[in-house]
Amino acid sequence: MPSKPVTPETARRRRRPTKAGTVLTHDLIVATALRMLAEHGAEGLSARRLGLALGADPSAVYRYFAGMDDLVLAIADELIHQALTDWEPTGRWQADLRALGTGIHRAYLTHPQAAQLTANRVSGRTHEIAADETILGILHTAGFHGPAAARIYHAFIDQTLAFAALDAASLALPEAAREADERQWQATYARLPATTHPHIAAAAPSLVARMNDSAYPAALDLLLAGAAGELEG
Amino acid sequence: MPSKPVTPETARRRRRPTKAGTVLTHDLIVATALRMLAEHGAEGLSARRLGLALGADPSAVYRYFAGMDDLVLAIADELIHQALTDWEPTGRWQADLRALGTGIHRAYLTHPQAAQLTANRVSGRTHEIAADETILGILHTAGFHGPAAARIYHAFIDQTLAFAALDAASLALPEAAREADERQWQATYARLPATTHPHIAAAAPSLVARMNDSAYPAALDLLLAGAAGELEG
Repeated sequence: MPSKPVTPETARRRRRPTKAGTVLTHDLIVATALRMLAEHGAEGLSARRLGLALGADPSAVYRYFAGMDDLVLAIADELIHQALTDWEPTGRWQADLRALGTGIHRAYLTHPQAAQLTANRVSGRTHEIAADETILGILHTAGFHGPAAARIYHAFIDQTLAFAALDAASLALPEAAREADERQWQATYARLPATTHPHIAAAAPSLVARMNDSAYPAALDLLLAGAAGELEG
Repeated sequence: MPSKPVTPETARRRRRPTKAGTVLTHDLIVATALRMLAEHGAEGLSARRLGLALGADPSAVYRYFAGMDDLVLAIADELIHQALTDWEPTGRWQADLRALGTGIHRAYLTHPQAAQLTANRVSGRTHEIAADETILGILHTAGFHGPAAARIYHAFIDQTLAFAALDAASLALPEAAREADERQWQATYARLPATTHPHIAAAAPSLVARMNDSAYPAALDLLLAGAAGELEG
């Protein structure tokens, strides 16, 4: 439950159409904010711009959100919501965590600017709580309890969000910078001679083949294998 | 080697003192840029402000760097440099990778604004290359070769940088937002009843105890354990 009482929804929100004839809702404002982040980046998110996009007075946003940070946390929870929508448990814990992790990573990378703004946030909201209960439930079924469950949950969810933040930052780079970075593996690393850099030279074809893709799937598999090893040990 | 020829240092740089009497160098500009990032954030880094801080004309920066993005990549390489400075190999591959990973993570978090700007970049520069050769060498000694070495290298280095990006974003949050996020574990999660959220309720004391610290050490240990399992398999 939230740490402080909130004004009941009905008292705060006037359910009448905006100038443009749209009925404002929490979800419509979040969806509009996600679109504005995609178009203008984090700097482009303001009550004024949101009001313009919604055809409403900027102050309308504050009838639904306590402030812009409250809206940011709602965006965070919406990304988790989108990640959970298509997920179906199979009962196999490693497969279930792999699907949940890649689903969350994918949902964040669908919205790179929102991901950069929210990957490190803790909202304590509906979908975040649902995701956490689900992950801890999967770990419980696998045989992890108490501090071990919390440790593996923490590593799993923050690994997912950390790669979301890292990969979103790459997607949000200006194209010239991203392309220059991506060329480094071929243009610099693959040309280092074995005499001075034997290990890079030996790995070069594999580095060129994989370094411009996300390392998240490989890191996730190693983390899950490490966790599985604890059950056998 | 770089992908294109660079003008030799002596031809590009005039080694005469600035108005303030300081002799400009590549390293002085990078150190000054790191200080400006800490004081003003990523938006505060400009040739004009750098010139002011160095007591030099803003154009002086462009005698040392092809542009601001070139300077950003030099900052990235300096963070890796700082991480490698204190590192000593022991010959035990897991201990060596753990020390390298935590050293890189720590160096980035010492400069959170620079970390957010550079964690996802590939500079192809001296210290980045040295770190990559070192990590691949450790993996070679452990018994990883070819695609397996590249996969584990990729997962290891990008997990380190991903947590650097995530944890730096939390350090860079306004204090009120960070404290509100940190309170969620006690104020929201620890109060969820076991009837509706049995797995969160069971893990609550462990979650409160650990969720406001970085999950990087736990994720690193699981990743290394997963890699070690491949050697035994």
